[in-house]
Amino acid sequence: MRRIALDAMGTDAAPQPEVEGAILAARERLAEVLLVGPQELLRQELQQHSARGLPIHIVHASEAVTMKDAGAKAFRRKRDSSMRVAARLVREGKADGWVSAGNTGAVMTTAKITLGALEGVDRPALAAVFPTSKGTAAVLLDVGANVDCKPEHLEQFAVMGEIYYRVIFGAARPRVGLLSIGEEDHKGNDLTRDAFARLKHLPLNFVGNVEGRDLYNGNVDVIVCDGFTGNVALKISEGLVEAVSSLLKQSLSSTLSSKVGYVLARKAFRSFRKRVDYSEYGGAPLLGVRGVCVIGHGGSNANAIKNAIRAAAEFAEGRINEKIEKELAGAVLGQGGS
Amino acid sequence: MRRIALDAMGTDAAPQPEVEGAILAARERLAEVLLVGPQELLRQELQQHSARGLPIHIVHASEAVTMKDAGAKAFRRKRDSSMRVAARLVREGKADGWVSAGNTGAVMTTAKITLGALEGVDRPALAAVFPTSKGTAAVLLDVGANVDCKPEHLEQFAVMGEIYYRVIFGAARPRVGLLSIGEEDHKGNDLTRDAFARLKHLPLNFVGNVEGRDLYNGNVDVIVCDGFTGNVALKISEGLVEAVSSLLKQSLSSTLSSKVGYVLARKAFRSFRKRVDYSEYGGAPLLGVRGVCVIGHGGSNANAIKNAIRAAAEFAEGRINEKIEKELAGAVLGQGGS
Repeated sequence: MRRIALDAMGTDAAPQPEVEGAILAARERLAEVLLVGPQELLRQELQQHSARGLPIHIVHASEAVTMKDAGAKAFRRKRDSSMRVAARLVREGKADGWVSAGNTGAVMTTAKITLGALEGVDRPALAAVFPTSKGTAAVLLDVGANVDCKPEHLEQFAVMGEIYYRVIFGAARPRVGLLSIGEEDHKGNDLTRDAFARLKHLPLNFVGNVEGRDLYNGNVDVIVCDGFTGNVALKISEGLVEAVSSLLKQSLSSTLSSKVGYVLARKAFRSFRKRVDYSEYGGAPLLGVRGVCVIGHGGSNANAIKNAIRAAAEFAEGRINEKIEKELAGAVLGQGGS
Repeated sequence: MRRIALDAMGTDAAPQPEVEGAILAARERLAEVLLVGPQELLRQELQQHSARGLPIHIVHASEAVTMKDAGAKAFRRKRDSSMRVAARLVREGKADGWVSAGNTGAVMTTAKITLGALEGVDRPALAAVFPTSKGTAAVLLDVGANVDCKPEHLEQFAVMGEIYYRVIFGAARPRVGLLSIGEEDHKGNDLTRDAFARLKHLPLNFVGNVEGRDLYNGNVDVIVCDGFTGNVALKISEGLVEAVSSLLKQSLSSTLSSKVGYVLARKAFRSFRKRVDYSEYGGAPLLGVRGVCVIGHGGSNANAIKNAIRAAAEFAEGRINEKIEKELAGAVLGQGGS
């Protein structure tokens, strides 16, 4: 069983969702959990549940990073934060990976500084995992670690995302696409046109440019883009789902005296909303750091935390980082210009 | 009554939606319509409807631009295309505006070359108009005219979009936001950080950075971004609506023996889909060219064409272009760096 460090002070409702999520994960034997945070608080929280005999251990950390802490500042000022202690457990080999649902910027900074980048990786990338309408999963990266990217960064994202998808979803040849504004090879901006030339030389199943509409239709497995575009894409999706929900409610309640249709539609809609929430899918893996790091949503509930722990354990189990280093060393990168 | 030239060969099913849309618009006295395309074909199509006495006139054009024609090539090679003839009618003052649901790239190229840019405008921008969950409209620009932008372009987009919104939707002080990846002023990429500094010096109601989730929640009226990001945003929205529709169908049909809930939800959903389709909202205005140009979706039906004609007539009626030139001349642009 893999050992996963869990920042117990990450979610908006911390430490309750973390403690309950750790218990769920430990019960299902998904991982041994190191619960990182204020010892006394966590002990009390654990006592309220029947956690006896489960593979859960408390590791003390006196501080917590809040949403107001800026990434680099949080890292420097709070040396004993639960986030930083969790990362340190990974660096020191005491944990096989860590999970935090805290301030995403701070988690990324902490991961990059504490763990460093893998050999061959210039920029770690945050990957979002979500379901398509075909029932398959899709991975979009980068969704916010790097707002300004160079073509070679997108090339590395493609290699990392492809390996992640292959290992986690068991696909032999995942289809990799470049997010652009038209399917034709020449469509796109300066960045994507240069990246396109590089991607087509990689030894992977590159299907060319894909459009925004392809994110959810299951026509592509791994979608590569810069972190600005990816972050906008993710948040538009969240916002649109909210808006659809609200408009659907309006439409249904204005045309029906009966509430039947509304109740039924709402139920289906809630199940859909859960599916588009990436935390429900196990959190967002940060690819390219020397260690396993999975970032959850601040609004995660116990189930989302459990799924993030599972994702971190599978990430470690699949030896994804070893594969990334090996393939980046072996792949003939940077051949786009030739 | 304004006179609008309609490229009758633009939609996938041309000229039927165009002819029927022209008839609807003429019946409602939204505009006098110059139907541009092969004379004989259009005459036959018109004869199948009771168009007698309506303010519709055929203007002959022997060629049609197809989806396969690249923008600039289509313009050069097809001198007598319905698209180009329609644009020429505007340039020569014979029409107050034109509408085309043809190849968007070709329409934009034709508009830019035939009409030229307004005084003070470096880059015309395509604006998408869509509804929010509050029932208000929102305008997003640029959605594809300029894939690589400089900060000063975003500044001009803000001025143009704000005027358009003010005139068309009658808002005194539309809220203008910059699409970014966080609300804090410093969040964003190199482009948006520079643009932010410029936008806050403009004499308009700049509300700062907005996120993808704000597109549909009605918290902002005009959202400014580069054409790559905007195009991705629009297509993700279309794709997600498709996916939600498909998953909703699956959820409802798998959990219900009765079809009642599904039928009701589908009806509501269709009405929502119509609302997010920008062509249903009257097409996308191309802002910044010397003349009025509204671009419809290739899949437009007669109603969408009618709405695009209405949008073009209102655009001309509101003297938006005069206001853009005046405000760009008066506004103290380019002060971001000071």
